[in-house]
Amino acid sequence: MEPAYCDVRALTEQLAAPLSAEDQTVQSMPDTSPTKWHRAHTTWFFETFVLGADHVPYDPSFAFLFNSYYEAVGPRHARPERGVITRPGVAEVTAYREHVDAAVRSLLDGELSPRTCELLELGLHHEQQHQELIVMDIQHVLSRNPRQPAYGPLPWKPRMPVALDGWIDHPGGVVAIGHDGRGFCYDNERPRHDVLLRPFQVARSLVTCGEWQAFIDDGGYRRSELWMSDGWHSVQALGWEAPEYWSRADDWQRFGLAGSGPVEPADPVLHVSWYEADAFARWRDARLPTEAEWEAVAPPVDVGDDGGWYGTAWQWTASPYTAYPGFRPAPGAVGEYNGKFMVNQQALRGGSLATPRGHTRRTYRNFFPPASRWMFAGVRLASD
Amino acid sequence: MEPAYCDVRALTEQLAAPLSAEDQTVQSMPDTSPTKWHRAHTTWFFETFVLGADHVPYDPSFAFLFNSYYEAVGPRHARPERGVITRPGVAEVTAYREHVDAAVRSLLDGELSPRTCELLELGLHHEQQHQELIVMDIQHVLSRNPRQPAYGPLPWKPRMPVALDGWIDHPGGVVAIGHDGRGFCYDNERPRHDVLLRPFQVARSLVTCGEWQAFIDDGGYRRSELWMSDGWHSVQALGWEAPEYWSRADDWQRFGLAGSGPVEPADPVLHVSWYEADAFARWRDARLPTEAEWEAVAPPVDVGDDGGWYGTAWQWTASPYTAYPGFRPAPGAVGEYNGKFMVNQQALRGGSLATPRGHTRRTYRNFFPPASRWMFAGVRLASD
Amino acid sequence: MEPAYCDVRALTEQLAAPLSAEDQTVQSMPDTSPTKWHRAHTTWFFETFVLGADHVPYDPSFAFLFNSYYEAVGPRHARPERGVITRPGVAEVTAYREHVDAAVRSLLDGELSPRTCELLELGLHHEQQHQELIVMDIQHVLSRNPRQPAYGPLPWKPRMPVALDGWIDHPGGVVAIGHDGRGFCYDNERPRHDVLLRPFQVARSLVTCGEWQAFIDDGGYRRSELWMSDGWHSVQALGWEAPEYWSRADDWQRFGLAGSGPVEPADPVLHVSWYEADAFARWRDARLPTEAEWEAVAPPVDVGDDGGWYGTAWQWTASPYTAYPGFRPAPGAVGEYNGKFMVNQQALRGGSLATPRGHTRRTYRNFFPPASRWMFAGVRLASD
Amino acid sequence: MEPAYCDVRALTEQLAAPLSAEDQTVQSMPDTSPTKWHRAHTTWFFETFVLGADHVPYDPSFAFLFNSYYEAVGPRHARPERGVITRPGVAEVTAYREHVDAAVRSLLDGELSPRTCELLELGLHHEQQHQELIVMDIQHVLSRNPRQPAYGPLPWKPRMPVALDGWIDHPGGVVAIGHDGRGFCYDNERPRHDVLLRPFQVARSLVTCGEWQAFIDDGGYRRSELWMSDGWHSVQALGWEAPEYWSRADDWQRFGLAGSGPVEPADPVLHVSWYEADAFARWRDARLPTEAEWEAVAPPVDVGDDGGWYGTAWQWTASPYTAYPGFRPAPGAVGEYNGKFMVNQQALRGGSLATPRGHTRRTYRNFFPPASRWMFAGVRLASD
Repeated sequence: MEPAYCDVRALTEQLAAPLSAEDQTVQSMPDTSPTKWHRAHTTWFFETFVLGADHVPYDPSFAFLFNSYYEAVGPRHARPERGVITRPGVAEVTAYREHVDAAVRSLLDGELSPRTCELLELGLHHEQQHQELIVMDIQHVLSRNPRQPAYGPLPWKPRMPVALDGWIDHPGGVVAIGHDGRGFCYDNERPRHDVLLRPFQVARSLVTCGEWQAFIDDGGYRRSELWMSDGWHSVQALGWEAPEYWSRADDWQRFGLAGSGPVEPADPVLHVSWYEADAFARWRDARLPTEAEWEAVAPPVDVGDDGGWYGTAWQWTASPYTAYPGFRPAPGAVGEYNGKFMVNQQALRGGSLATPRGHTRRTYRNFFPPASRWMFAGVRLASD
Repeated sequence: MEPAYCDVRALTEQLAAPLSAEDQTVQSMPDTSPTKWHRAHTTWFFETFVLGADHVPYDPSFAFLFNSYYEAVGPRHARPERGVITRPGVAEVTAYREHVDAAVRSLLDGELSPRTCELLELGLHHEQQHQELIVMDIQHVLSRNPRQPAYGPLPWKPRMPVALDGWIDHPGGVVAIGHDGRGFCYDNERPRHDVLLRPFQVARSLVTCGEWQAFIDDGGYRRSELWMSDGWHSVQALGWEAPEYWSRADDWQRFGLAGSGPVEPADPVLHVSWYEADAFARWRDARLPTEAEWEAVAPPVDVGDDGGWYGTAWQWTASPYTAYPGFRPAPGAVGEYNGKFMVNQQALRGGSLATPRGHTRRTYRNFFPPASRWMFAGVRLASD
Repeated sequence: MEPAYCDVRALTEQLAAPLSAEDQTVQSMPDTSPTKWHRAHTTWFFETFVLGADHVPYDPSFAFLFNSYYEAVGPRHARPERGVITRPGVAEVTAYREHVDAAVRSLLDGELSPRTCELLELGLHHEQQHQELIVMDIQHVLSRNPRQPAYGPLPWKPRMPVALDGWIDHPGGVVAIGHDGRGFCYDNERPRHDVLLRPFQVARSLVTCGEWQAFIDDGGYRRSELWMSDGWHSVQALGWEAPEYWSRADDWQRFGLAGSGPVEPADPVLHVSWYEADAFARWRDARLPTEAEWEAVAPPVDVGDDGGWYGTAWQWTASPYTAYPGFRPAPGAVGEYNGKFMVNQQALRGGSLATPRGHTRRTYRNFFPPASRWMFAGVRLASD
Repeated sequence: MEPAYCDVRALTEQLAAPLSAEDQTVQSMPDTSPTKWHRAHTTWFFETFVLGADHVPYDPSFAFLFNSYYEAVGPRHARPERGVITRPGVAEVTAYREHVDAAVRSLLDGELSPRTCELLELGLHHEQQHQELIVMDIQHVLSRNPRQPAYGPLPWKPRMPVALDGWIDHPGGVVAIGHDGRGFCYDNERPRHDVLLRPFQVARSLVTCGEWQAFIDDGGYRRSELWMSDGWHSVQALGWEAPEYWSRADDWQRFGLAGSGPVEPADPVLHVSWYEADAFARWRDARLPTEAEWEAVAPPVDVGDDGGWYGTAWQWTASPYTAYPGFRPAPGAVGEYNGKFMVNQQALRGGSLATPRGHTRRTYRNFFPPASRWMFAGVRLASD
C-alpha cells in the first residue's frame, strides 16, 4: 500500500509541476477547480476519512475550503467561488500535502483496520480521478487565454490508437455486467447482474476528426432533425459549430495540452458533448452503445489497446447514469461519492489520454451532464 | 372514426367551457400554455397533418403561432411568449376549430388512405394529451391568483382509489415489455422487447398525503442525505418544504381544481417532483419501480382500478426516459413527437385524474424533467 | 370637480373600449401592465386615498392586487406577475369602477375637506398618467403579435407639428424654474427656485424620422464613440439598430397604434431611449437641453403647439431626475408617488400624442430609465 | 517630471509588494480587477499613449489583455474574465513594467512635446487612481476568504479625523465651481462655471460607525419609507442589514485591510452605497450635499484635514455625475476617460484613506453606481 500511496501522491505533484502559482489558483468556469484546490482536496480526503478523529487537522479552515460535496461532513465553500481563494497559496498547499503524507506513512507503518485500508484505497482512486480533472481543468483555463499557452506533455506516453475498420459483432443474450469483486471498484459498479442484450455491433475504432469534419460540412450543426430537442437548444443557445476547443481561420484548428495546432483528420475526435455524440450517430444511421453493450465487447484493460478503448477518449454511451439493480451506496459520508449523482447524467466508458494508468477498468462508469464538453470525451458507434 | 373525432373534439371544448376569455389567454410559466393556445394547437395538428397540402390554411399566421415544436414544419412563436398573444381571441379560435372540424368531417365521409387514418388517430390521441395539459395548466394559472379561484369539477367522475395494504410480488425473470401492436400506441412504446427482471415487489397503493406529512415531519425536506445532489439543490434553491400547491397556515392546505382546502391524509399525494419521489422512497428504505417492473405488475387499464393505477396520479418510475431497443421514430415531422425528448426526463406510468378516459394504457410512457411538479404526479413504491 | 371626475373616468373606459377581454389581460414585459390592471388600479387609488377608512372595500383582494408600489399601504402582488391574474376579469373590473364611481359621486354631493379635494384631484391626474400608460402598454402587447394588429385611433385628434427650422435663443441668466402654485402640480415640480443658465439655443422642432435615418445610415448604431459606455453596452446586448418598433424589409417600417406602415421621414421620431437621444445629439455636435433650459423656452401649454412641444413626443433632457432644492415629498402614502424614484432615471419634458389633453404643463416632469423605449419619447436638440 | 514618474510607478509596486502571485491573479467580482492586471494596465497606458507609434509593443497580446475600455484603441478582453488570465504572471508583468519604465525614462531625458507632457501627466494620475483600486480590490478578494486574511498597513500614515460637532453654514448665492486651470485636473472638472446656491449647511464631520449602528438599531434597513424605490429593492434583493464588510456575531465586526476586528463607534463609517447614504440622511431629517455645496465649503486639500475631508472616506453627494455646462471631452482616445460614464452614476467628493497623497483636490469628481459599496465611501450630511 505504501509504494502505491507515494506513487499516486507524487503523480499529482508531477502534473502540477509545470504550473505556476498563478496557473494553479484560478477557475475558468464553475465546472473547473483550481489546481491547488485539487491538490488540497485530495489531501483533505485522506486527512478526513483515513487519519480520522485522532488526527489534529492541519488547519481549521481546510474542512470548509476543501470539502467538495460531502453534506455529511459539514458546510463547505461554494463551488463557483473556488477561484477567489488565494490563501492558502501553492506553497502552503505543498506543506499541507507533506504533513498529511507524513501522517499517512506513519499510519502505514502500523496495523491498519480493514475499514482504514478500504478508505485509503478509495482515497488513492479518488486522487487519480482528480489527477484527470487537474488536466481537464488547466486545459480549459489555458484555452481562455488569448495567447493560447501550452500546458506541455503529460508524464506518461500517449497512446495512439490504430485505425481499425469494421465492427465487433455480439449475438446478444444474457451477459453479466458489473464488477465481480476481485480488486478495487467503486460502489456504482455493483452489484454484478445479468442483462439481456439483443444482437448488436460496436465499432472497432473511435470516431475521428476527419469523420467529424464531414459531419460539420454536411450541416450537422445546422440540421435540427439530427438532434435531441435539448441538444438543439444547446447548439443554438451556445452557438456550437464544432467540438469544444476547435476554431476556424481558414482550416480547423484545435487547442489542446500542447497549445494550438491544426485538426488532424486521423485523430480521434475529443471534447464533444453527449448531444453531439448522439447527433453524429444519428447522422451516421447508427447509435451509441449502451453501457452493457460496451462492457460486453470491450477488451480487458490490461490487454494492448489498439482500438482506443482505454487511453484516448472516454466514450459516450446511450445509457443514462443510473443505479444497477440492487445498488446500495457505501455507508457513511463516502456513500455520497457516486450514488447521489444518478440523475441528469449520461454514462461514459473506457478512459482517456488524461486518465492515470491503472485507474480505469472495463466495469468503470464515468458520468457527465449531456451538455458538458471539457472532458476528454469522444465517440465509439454501435448499431443494431 | 367520426364519432370518436367529434367526441374528442367536444371534450376539449367542454374542458374549456368554464373558463373566461381572460382565463384562456394567459401563461403562468413557460411550461404552461394558454387554454386557447391548446385549443388552437390541437386544431392546427389536424389542419397540418391530416388535411394536408390540398387544404387552404384558415389563417396564414397560425402555422407560426400554433406549431409547438415541429422543426420540420417551420419556425414558430417562442414558447415563453405564448401568453402575450391576445389575437386570435377565444371566439376566433372557436371559429377555427369549427372550420377545421367541418373539413375533417368532410374528409371522413370519403375514402381515407391508411396514412391519413393513422394521422387522424394520432391527432385524437394528441388532443387527449392536450386535454390533460389544459387541466394542469389552468390549475397552475389559477393557483397564482391570491383569490385562489376554483376551476370546478371535471366532466368525468373522479375515481377514489381504495387504500390497499401490502405489496404485489413478482418473481423476476424475462418479461415482454412494450406494445404488442393491437390498437393504437405511440412510437415510443415499441418495439416490444424482452427484459430480464430480478425479483421485486410493487406497492398495492399510492403514497398518501398522510404518509407524506410524516415524511415532512421527520425532516424529509431538511435532510440532505435523502436526496440526489441535484434534488437537494432544487430543495434549497426553490425553497421546497412540501409538494406543489401545499401551504401551511396552522395545518396543511392544498390548492386544487376545486380551490383551496385542507390536505386529506387518505388522499394520494399529488404534484411531487421525481426528486421528491426518490427522496421519499429512500426515506422509506424502498425505491421507485422501473418502467419494466411497473408494466410487469400493472393490471390492464380496463380492469377495475382499485389501486389508483390509471385514474389518480401518474406514477414516477426509477427509469430515465430512453429509447426501447430497436426504437425507430415515425417518419416525417410527426417523428418529432416523442423521440427527440429522450434525454433529461424521467418516465412516469399509469394515468391521472385529469387523463381523459381511454387515453392511457399499460404500455403508455409519460415523461417529465425531474424537477417538474405541476403534473398530477404521485408515487407508488417498489422494493427488491 | 364632478364633471372633471366623470370625464376623466370615462376617458379611461373609452381608451379600453376597442380592446377585448384577452387584450386587456396580458403583460408583454415587466414594464407594462394589463389594461384591466390599469382600470382597476386607478379605481383602487380613489377607493383607498379618497373614500378612505369609512368605505368598505369592494373586494378584500383588491388592495393586494391593485396597489402598485405604495409600501405604506401594505404588501402587493409582484409587478412581473400582473399578466397572470385572470380574475377579476374585465367585467368585474367594470363593476368595480362603477361601484367606486357611485361612491365618489356621492361624496362629491357633500362637503369635502381640503385634504379630500387634494387627493381627489391627485387621483384624477394619476388616472390621466395611467391613460397614457394604457396606450403605451397595449401598443407594446400588440407589437409582439406576428399579425401586427392595430389598436386604432385615439379618442382625440392627433396634432401634427409644423416643421420649423432653426433655434430659439436664450441669453442665459437667472430664471425661475418650477411650479408657481397656481393650479395643480405634482410635488416634484416644487419648490419654484432660481437657476443660473448660460446662453443657449433650443431647436424649434423635434428630430424627425428622416434625420434619424441619416443617423442610422451614417453608422450611428455602429460607432461606439458616439455613445455613453452604458448606452454602447445596451446597443450591443440588445442588438439595437433603430428605434423601438422599427423593422427593415427593404425600407424601414414602423409599428404603431395604427399597425404597421412605412416610416415617414417628416414624422418626429418616437420610441428612442435616452442613450439613443444622447448619441444622436453627439452625432449632430449638439446636445440635449437641461430641464431648466427646456422650461425656460417652452411656450405655455395652452398656446397653439406648432413645434411639437406638448402633443407629439416627450422630449429627453440632459438632466437626471432629481429633487429640486428644498423638495419635500407630500405627507402620507401619496408621498411615495414621485420622490422615491429620484435616482437612475432621466427627465423628459412636454407631453406626447398619448398624453390626455389638459394633463401636462410646462413645469411637468416625466422620468424613465435611460434604456427604456416603449414610451412616446423623442428628441429636441439644444446647443451652447 | 522624472522623479514624479519614478515615485508614482514605485508606489504601485510598493502596494503590490505584500501580495503573493496568487493574490495578484484573481478577480472576486466583475467590478474588481486582479492586482497584476492593474500593474499591467497602468503600464499599457504609458506604452500606448506616451511611447506611442515609434515604440515596438512589449508583447502583441497586451493591447488586447490590458486595454480597459478604450473603444478607439481596439477590441479588448472581457472585464469579467480578467481573473482567468494566468499568463503573463506577476514576474512577467514586473518585467513589462521595467521595460516600459526604461523607455519612458529615456524619453524624459529628451525634449517632450506639450502633448506628450500632458499624456505623461495624465498617465501618472491614471496610475494613482489604479493604486486606490488595487487597495479596494484586494480588500474585496481577501474578504471573500473564510480565513479573513489581512492585507497589512498602507505605505502611508493613516489620518484619523478629529470628531467635530456642528455644521458649516453657507449663505448661498453665486459660487464658482470647477477647476481654475492652475495645475492638473481631469476634463470633467471643467469648465469652471457659476452655480446659484440656496443657503445651506454641511456637517463638520463624517458620519460615524456609532451613528450608523443607531440607524441599524432603529430599523433603518427594515423601514421602506426611508429608501429610494431602487434602494429598497437592493436592500431586499441583496439582503443588506449593514454596510459592506460588517458582520454580526454578538457585536458588529468589520473586515478591513488589517483583517477582522470590532466596529469602532468613533470611526467614520465606510463602504456604504449611495442608497444607504441617502436613506441614512433621510432618517436624520437631513440630506446629502450637492457637488457644488461640497466644493463651496470644503477646505483646500493641502490645509490640515481635521474633518475627514480628503483622507478618510469619499463622500457621497446628492448629485448624479453629469457634464458641467460647456464640457468637452479631451480629444482622441483619452477622451473616453471620463465623459462616457456620465449616466447611471452618483458623484462623490474628497478622497479616502486609500487615495495616494497628492492625487485628489477640491474640484476632483469621483463617481460610482448607486449600489456599489466596495469603495472607501462614507457620508457627510448637509441640510437646508
